[in-house]
Amino acid sequence: MRILVLGGDGYLGWPTAMQLTARGHQVAVVDNYLRRRMCREENVEPLFEVPNLHERVELWKSVSGHQVDVFIGDLMDWGFVEEVFRAFEPDGIMHYAEQPAAPYSMLNRRAATLTLENNLMVTLHVIFAVKEFCPQAQIVKIGTMGEYGTPNVDIEEGWLEVEHKGRRHKFLYPRQASSLYHTTKIMDTDLLWFYIRTWKIRATDLMQGPVYGLFTDECAEEERLLPFFNYDEIFGTVLNRFVVQAVAGYPLTVYGKGNQIRGHLNIKDTLNCVRLSLENPAKQGELRIFNQFTETFTVNELAERVQRVGNELDLNVKIQHLENPRVEAEEHYYNPAHTGLLELGLEPHFLSDDVLREMIELVMKYRDRINHDAIFRGVKWG
Amino acid sequence: MRILVLGGDGYLGWPTAMQLTARGHQVAVVDNYLRRRMCREENVEPLFEVPNLHERVELWKSVSGHQVDVFIGDLMDWGFVEEVFRAFEPDGIMHYAEQPAAPYSMLNRRAATLTLENNLMVTLHVIFAVKEFCPQAQIVKIGTMGEYGTPNVDIEEGWLEVEHKGRRHKFLYPRQASSLYHTTKIMDTDLLWFYIRTWKIRATDLMQGPVYGLFTDECAEEERLLPFFNYDEIFGTVLNRFVVQAVAGYPLTVYGKGNQIRGHLNIKDTLNCVRLSLENPAKQGELRIFNQFTETFTVNELAERVQRVGNELDLNVKIQHLENPRVEAEEHYYNPAHTGLLELGLEPHFLSDDVLREMIELVMKYRDRINHDAIFRGVKWG
Repeated sequence: MRILVLGGDGYLGWPTAMQLTARGHQVAVVDNYLRRRMCREENVEPLFEVPNLHERVELWKSVSGHQVDVFIGDLMDWGFVEEVFRAFEPDGIMHYAEQPAAPYSMLNRRAATLTLENNLMVTLHVIFAVKEFCPQAQIVKIGTMGEYGTPNVDIEEGWLEVEHKGRRHKFLYPRQASSLYHTTKIMDTDLLWFYIRTWKIRATDLMQGPVYGLFTDECAEEERLLPFFNYDEIFGTVLNRFVVQAVAGYPLTVYGKGNQIRGHLNIKDTLNCVRLSLENPAKQGELRIFNQFTETFTVNELAERVQRVGNELDLNVKIQHLENPRVEAEEHYYNPAHTGLLELGLEPHFLSDDVLREMIELVMKYRDRINHDAIFRGVKWG
Repeated sequence: MRILVLGGDGYLGWPTAMQLTARGHQVAVVDNYLRRRMCREENVEPLFEVPNLHERVELWKSVSGHQVDVFIGDLMDWGFVEEVFRAFEPDGIMHYAEQPAAPYSMLNRRAATLTLENNLMVTLHVIFAVKEFCPQAQIVKIGTMGEYGTPNVDIEEGWLEVEHKGRRHKFLYPRQASSLYHTTKIMDTDLLWFYIRTWKIRATDLMQGPVYGLFTDECAEEERLLPFFNYDEIFGTVLNRFVVQAVAGYPLTVYGKGNQIRGHLNIKDTLNCVRLSLENPAKQGELRIFNQFTETFTVNELAERVQRVGNELDLNVKIQHLENPRVEAEEHYYNPAHTGLLELGLEPHFLSDDVLREMIELVMKYRDRINHDAIFRGVKWG
């Protein structure tokens, strides 16, 4: 298949591009380096030095023999979108090209504006490009489990059959998110669903939980191929942050009581979920929704695991409970379904002590690059 | 109260401003004449010549003695937003400042972009302005009954208590709209609800049905104070279009089977709903939702009424069923609640033959201004 990876420079985008080519697909990556710019501006640079996309493509070619095309530009610019779609003619589009961080979206008005405008306009452009240039191509979009929030009933996979006053209707599962970033993902889903019903295009919306991990098979021979890995409060996901905090001797930053439950997954599983979704597309006119995670943990459970494994590696890990800077429930019911991707063939990599040890040991090699000032900033929701 | 009317030049904005001053409130109108620009570009000018806002304010002052402040500028520009809020210090904000037409949002990519960007960014700016300059002020926003779509169960007033697998949760009523415009209104609601929970600001979301009518009490002495009245396919609401079509000798344009049911209301009731919502604000931290309509009709029922009353006035009204350019259900269940505004004191003006006759007779005075080419354009959803 010919697959466009939008946001191909990011934490998930670049590993996705490598894996897809390793599995025999033709891939082009598209990025405007927005994530790099935001990280530089907020002084939260990634743990590994990251070659630019042209350099990564050369490295990957020298290691694997696989070719990846590169388009550098802004998908908010329709002229660029048109150029990319005309040149590459994709069968599938992996859409990662969004501002991906909840805390960033809550920094200030300018960051909120960037998040709302960028995320919605890029999704709109992708939809219009598919309609105009490749109406059979499937859009696979990264949504988030955060769209559902933490309702007091079971979270189903995208849809909810409701009985009300003796009548029944199947709705998109009603969603309520707890950051502006997560709210833009709700809007993305609404936008996709509207145009799918109207134009009979097709899409898979991957409601992903927080991803952890650094290592994917394609990095085995060349660590300069490692992903764009943030460990800071703004762009880092929770387990990645805890691992780096443990290595840095920084007490693990648990927000509030730490009983917040989320569905997590290994970056290796993300790549497989995405690939399986691309290789087995939704039908024309279908919005297919998968809940993309493999296990649920409380924040406390994650912190305790990192502490235990870290201490086995003599890291003397401490845990601190900070006043929660977010507005979120710290005690809540959580029972989300996640069978769709398993049925498609996903074989999960669960979070074992071995997996954690491997992560910690890899980060320990880069200990000198950890910027302690990046770890905690106190970005407040209120 | 000090009330900012955003979009104060529009069909509802200007009559709202006049009525609020007539009821003793201090009012400022804010507009960038976007509606006028769009109507000029699409060659669908309003039925009445409309003086600019400064001229209307002078006219209204000469008739009533009431003063209205005017701010001309674009609420997408934060510098302007700041200037307005600092200068006026509102107690309440009536937010009409959006691209208001479903067919316009479906015209082409540029119109879709304008709709998405304008509607979302202005709402975001209003929220940030309230947080920064007047956190006690209530935002009253025009939503639409179209947010709910036409589900097979009763539509409640904003919220739905769901029982699922033996547990219960109260959700925002799940919404699914049938145009991009209506979808941006869903997004508006999500945006408001997120920031209300996070910042404890307050808002009323008025889920309004299609509005009809031209005449409000404040126009009695001066017809140049009549609203910005569209009768074309793009910006005109359904009953307003039928009335003008009847007068023009154009067969009434019923889309498809004509069994689509919607909740409608007289422009006089809109003004009262808005005023009641402003005068009786939501609590801090509350998103209050009212379904704003007074009666439901099928499109066929509206067409038949206009035909009957028109024929009494010797108009020889014909009805034509056109292939439906929209993607929507033509036969559906529809039972929406609408008690909140009645409990607040709304006294509805129902659609009687007298009301229709008054509308038709007023339009007949302006018969020469009707542009037949504006009546039907065939804007297709597909």
